[in-house]
Amino acid sequence: MKPAIAFGFFLLSLAPEVLAGDGKWTPQQVLAQGPEWVKAQGFELPLQRLWDATAGDGLLANAVKLPGCSGSFVSAEGLLITNHHCVAGILQEHSTPQANLTRDGYLARTRADEKRAGAYRIQVPRGFRDVTAEVLGAVPAGADDLARFAAVEAKQKALVAECEQRAGTRCQFAEFDGGLFFTLTEYEDVPDVRLVYAPPLGVGNYGGEVDNWSWPRHTGDFALLRAYAADGAPYRPRHFFPLSKDGVREGDAVAVLGYPGRTYRAWVADEMAEREARWFPSIRDLTGEWIALLKEAGALAPEVAIAVADDLRSLENTHKNAQGQIAGLARGRIVERQRAEEERVRTLAAKRADGADALAALEGLRALNAARLATWERDFLLDMIARGPRALRWPTSLARRAHEAVKPDAEREPGYMERDVRQLRDQLARDQKRYAASADRRLLVSWVRRALALPAGQRIAAVDAAFGGATTDAALQAALDALYSRSQVFDLAVRTAMFDETPEAQRARRDPLLDLGLALDAERRELKARRDRAAGATLRLRPAWRRAVIAEAGRPVAPDANGSLRVTFGRVRGYSPREAVVYTPHTTLLGAVAKHTGEDPFELPERVREAFAAGRLGRWADPRLGHVPVAFLADCDTTGGNSGSPTIDGRGRLVGVNFDRVWENVANDFGYNPEIARNVNADARYLLWLLEEVEAARDLVAELLPD
Amino acid sequence: MKPAIAFGFFLLSLAPEVLAGDGKWTPQQVLAQGPEWVKAQGFELPLQRLWDATAGDGLLANAVKLPGCSGSFVSAEGLLITNHHCVAGILQEHSTPQANLTRDGYLARTRADEKRAGAYRIQVPRGFRDVTAEVLGAVPAGADDLARFAAVEAKQKALVAECEQRAGTRCQFAEFDGGLFFTLTEYEDVPDVRLVYAPPLGVGNYGGEVDNWSWPRHTGDFALLRAYAADGAPYRPRHFFPLSKDGVREGDAVAVLGYPGRTYRAWVADEMAEREARWFPSIRDLTGEWIALLKEAGALAPEVAIAVADDLRSLENTHKNAQGQIAGLARGRIVERQRAEEERVRTLAAKRADGADALAALEGLRALNAARLATWERDFLLDMIARGPRALRWPTSLARRAHEAVKPDAEREPGYMERDVRQLRDQLARDQKRYAASADRRLLVSWVRRALALPAGQRIAAVDAAFGGATTDAALQAALDALYSRSQVFDLAVRTAMFDETPEAQRARRDPLLDLGLALDAERRELKARRDRAAGATLRLRPAWRRAVIAEAGRPVAPDANGSLRVTFGRVRGYSPREAVVYTPHTTLLGAVAKHTGEDPFELPERVREAFAAGRLGRWADPRLGHVPVAFLADCDTTGGNSGSPTIDGRGRLVGVNFDRVWENVANDFGYNPEIARNVNADARYLLWLLEEVEAARDLVAELLPD
Repeated sequence: MKPAIAFGFFLLSLAPEVLAGDGKWTPQQVLAQGPEWVKAQGFELPLQRLWDATAGDGLLANAVKLPGCSGSFVSAEGLLITNHHCVAGILQEHSTPQANLTRDGYLARTRADEKRAGAYRIQVPRGFRDVTAEVLGAVPAGADDLARFAAVEAKQKALVAECEQRAGTRCQFAEFDGGLFFTLTEYEDVPDVRLVYAPPLGVGNYGGEVDNWSWPRHTGDFALLRAYAADGAPYRPRHFFPLSKDGVREGDAVAVLGYPGRTYRAWVADEMAEREARWFPSIRDLTGEWIALLKEAGALAPEVAIAVADDLRSLENTHKNAQGQIAGLARGRIVERQRAEEERVRTLAAKRADGADALAALEGLRALNAARLATWERDFLLDMIARGPRALRWPTSLARRAHEAVKPDAEREPGYMERDVRQLRDQLARDQKRYAASADRRLLVSWVRRALALPAGQRIAAVDAAFGGATTDAALQAALDALYSRSQVFDLAVRTAMFDETPEAQRARRDPLLDLGLALDAERRELKARRDRAAGATLRLRPAWRRAVIAEAGRPVAPDANGSLRVTFGRVRGYSPREAVVYTPHTTLLGAVAKHTGEDPFELPERVREAFAAGRLGRWADPRLGHVPVAFLADCDTTGGNSGSPTIDGRGRLVGVNFDRVWENVANDFGYNPEIARNVNADARYLLWLLEEVEAARDLVAELLPD
Repeated sequence: MKPAIAFGFFLLSLAPEVLAGDGKWTPQQVLAQGPEWVKAQGFELPLQRLWDATAGDGLLANAVKLPGCSGSFVSAEGLLITNHHCVAGILQEHSTPQANLTRDGYLARTRADEKRAGAYRIQVPRGFRDVTAEVLGAVPAGADDLARFAAVEAKQKALVAECEQRAGTRCQFAEFDGGLFFTLTEYEDVPDVRLVYAPPLGVGNYGGEVDNWSWPRHTGDFALLRAYAADGAPYRPRHFFPLSKDGVREGDAVAVLGYPGRTYRAWVADEMAEREARWFPSIRDLTGEWIALLKEAGALAPEVAIAVADDLRSLENTHKNAQGQIAGLARGRIVERQRAEEERVRTLAAKRADGADALAALEGLRALNAARLATWERDFLLDMIARGPRALRWPTSLARRAHEAVKPDAEREPGYMERDVRQLRDQLARDQKRYAASADRRLLVSWVRRALALPAGQRIAAVDAAFGGATTDAALQAALDALYSRSQVFDLAVRTAMFDETPEAQRARRDPLLDLGLALDAERRELKARRDRAAGATLRLRPAWRRAVIAEAGRPVAPDANGSLRVTFGRVRGYSPREAVVYTPHTTLLGAVAKHTGEDPFELPERVREAFAAGRLGRWADPRLGHVPVAFLADCDTTGGNSGSPTIDGRGRLVGVNFDRVWENVANDFGYNPEIARNVNADARYLLWLLEEVEAARDLVAELLPD
């Protein structure tokens, strides 16, 4: 194994007032803050067990990257734990009208019964490297913003390509806080992952959208996978977290490890204001409309309901998230506070001899934001293609693939390089199951109507060309009929063929939806070019501003989440969502049964209710809580991407799986508030109870609890 | 003043496990349980200050009876405190399109500005008397059930008539637990009551139906009235509760005094089951439909919305109550528990030589209940006339009045005797403001449609005669057009004339709605005759059964509420409505402002928000709570009719006004559960803060806080 090299980025002294929960720390920051700090977080493990820079290894390497999620090994034989909602695609893949795994869950009673997850791959981290000097060194002197962006992107590709020359390796480039520093992470890529256990929907998604982002929560949002090595034997991880039989109690220390996706705390107030006033309200409205359309289509045909289930869940999640962000930004007065802090730093910077750069950077960031507002509505709709109808998603993706494929690999857009091709192709195939014509058409009508309603100066030419003449609803429907009947993009075999064609070959097909995709992709590339230039400017501006902010913070500052490995330390804690209401941090099966109505989403499986009624709690009743624990709260600093993250106790044992944040805390992507920052964890003992007392899966329990 | 005589009904020894909150005690029970018991409830007052049987007087006499509510004197000059929602009728009476008192509230800055409440009278208790021996002695030997009922009713009338011979006196006969004992209460009748202060709706009904029956609560549901003596000078009460400046804290003792309307804990399980399975679900459905109809009519015309506001509030309250009863009966498994207790007592009674009566009584009560189910749907609709369209309420009331008026007074139905005439006439007049043709017609259509859908064997002949031919909706509407256009019952002058007519004179008018009322009243009298016979049987059966239950209870048992004066002792306490959620027992203005959205029902008045924003808390911020207290919870045992009840501390000072129960506790009418039995009180300090800091009503504050 290639030794990883860890750098300490923030060699700041620890301010005593530092808040445990606040901060998604990089492994390097944890090391830099030292053993005393880690001990103060309640962790008994020596620092080098968490991460040993010399050996390039440690428990943190057991934070495994899953598609859109996190996970961790929980046995020597490659068992992985993550969230139920992180394996929804696998359940759908193996569902048939006869066997609805999405609804009923799945348990492999032998290894032979494990279900291979076709396009599901995981990455196990092997090492981290700071590449800031190399990246900045690659920017030519005097480069303009677009050239700066291109130089950084080219360097990124070169670094990743070099890193991935090793077989079975995936490498991830990460930019921190708009270019303050850069890292390269090397992962072992494991393509053979199989489904071992997913509880029924009445456990894994108990409470559904009603309880989503809420507390109290009674969801067993966990699933077990098993990784296999290339030789077909179970993957043997270097580390795994043994499951704790003891659980945690209020005040206990916990840590959550994983790959938080994206946060925005380093943004300036104007940028946050755009989110509060434009982005989230628009997302809320659009997803609200699309959810209603998918439900309408699903209500008419059960096979459509199955096909759109995954998209629907994703849209509902986004919708509720947007509502929470809007409410949280307002309630936390986050934009005003960021502006006040910005003014404080600005005033201090203005007094310093070397403060001019920071002041100019702040003005520059504000100007970039203002420029984005001019074509905001148009750009938003182009962005929403990626969440919208397959009738647009697939053609634009095929067009982009063709556009990039004719370039030398190193010049291609990241995501469309040779290293990405397998995943793109997999996605095109996997997506077929999610396509239902009646639902897709409803989304397309919605998107086109919105595009036709854009103001002058923001029109999308490709849409005007295809539908501009359709001034009545009937005309629009007729135009759509023509598109659908004459297009072959919905045929997986044809679509797979299109995937490997040149733009010219694609055009020669005269497939009307593919033609629309080619035109829309051109619009999207133009948008991307504008954004690349702005990104180049940001690379120039944000680091200067952030350095001033960090210098004046008086404490260590964790960078924004960017999909790279982080660890957050916290405590098991309840909170008060509003006056006179206190939430305590544990729920049990008692509360789950009390919520059972027999109607979705509160429909506990019969065998769970039977075990409950029979008092079959086995060894899993917590005497302090009075019953089998189901979920718990902690004040760890998480966001999307942390789904499935291991939650470990101070001795490094897995006590739960992170699966959500509370509603009041959704806007923590823009700022941490210790009063309400709570993540929601499924208790490992609920999983153990289900396996032992409900499923009688003795072999699995023995594997999870070897001693 | 005639000395009142107090009897001790339950001379039972105090079981140590008695729960403070459980029980709406009669004054006599409080005396019987003795000074140690009262002290154990946290009350420092000597027992005789609460009630002195020899003097026939005590602090309990300051629980004043208001129309449908309770209240108490809070100054030597006749100031009364009650709930905002108990003066809704007065606010409506004085509202005009120019001055919307319902919305904006009212403050009389001088006594001359106080608003006389036309038909609003209060009663101040002067004495209580046990009349059980007299009542039972009036039943002839060998009387059948109907004769027994008639004899008790005749005796009731005679006792009340004799008692009311004294000028300015109202007397109330009360039956306890179906005839276990009877009392007669004598009140001073005070007809001159004037509105002094009602906060705006944004205080007095803050949270509206959204927060109704809920916690946390931020409603200033209080109002001040002033009683006047016959000479026009302020009424000088014998007692008043001084307002406390100190408030209460968690665990403090409180008592609630007042006139709880009706509870059903003495019912047998079969009777409770009828409520759970039939009555409450039917009430929920009917009121749900009527609420929607009134809102529909109100949305089309503001004057209709004003007219129906009171009815709407009442229907919404009933609707939410029914939902809570259904949920609470199920969750508390109240019917099952009552059945288990019933079986326990039955088994014990079966072993006793004198147990045969109790067993026969239980069987008799079960048979009576079964008989009621045969015509349940029909009887329900006839009952609902009293909550329904004025087009039915007024004619049936006029018909009954005429029917009773031709009898000698002593033979009339209670409620239609000479002593009741003024109140009936007042109600007919007061009701005019609540009538809006467009809304009323919607309710009538609903009622008639339901009557036309009754099964064979339960048809209402009068409805079939009037509408039976209307097989289409158009025909029904045409029939209604004819009724409305030809009837004069909506004209107050004509209706007042009809009120004093004989049945023959009423029939001679050939007014179609009055004719329908005469026919429906005949159906209702037939129903009443059936019920009177059943009530006679209940008088025979229930006491025998209750004596067995009480004998086996092993502790004092308070009788069911019946509109007579009661006191309940409790503590300031929060509760847990469900797993992982704890409600703490105080709210403050901070929480009220946090709920403010600017939209009904969360629209705090601007001057309240201004005072808040300016930090103008005066002397009213509670240092422990951090702000001006608004409401608090206690575990007092209350029900409807306790609205406006004084909540006093252990020193007899008024600390709040009871105004609601929590949702989880609505089914406590059928059984007390200490875990969730909580009443909601408006904090007296919120009133004082509003008067002093928002309204600058210094004279009133001085009167309420004389020292």
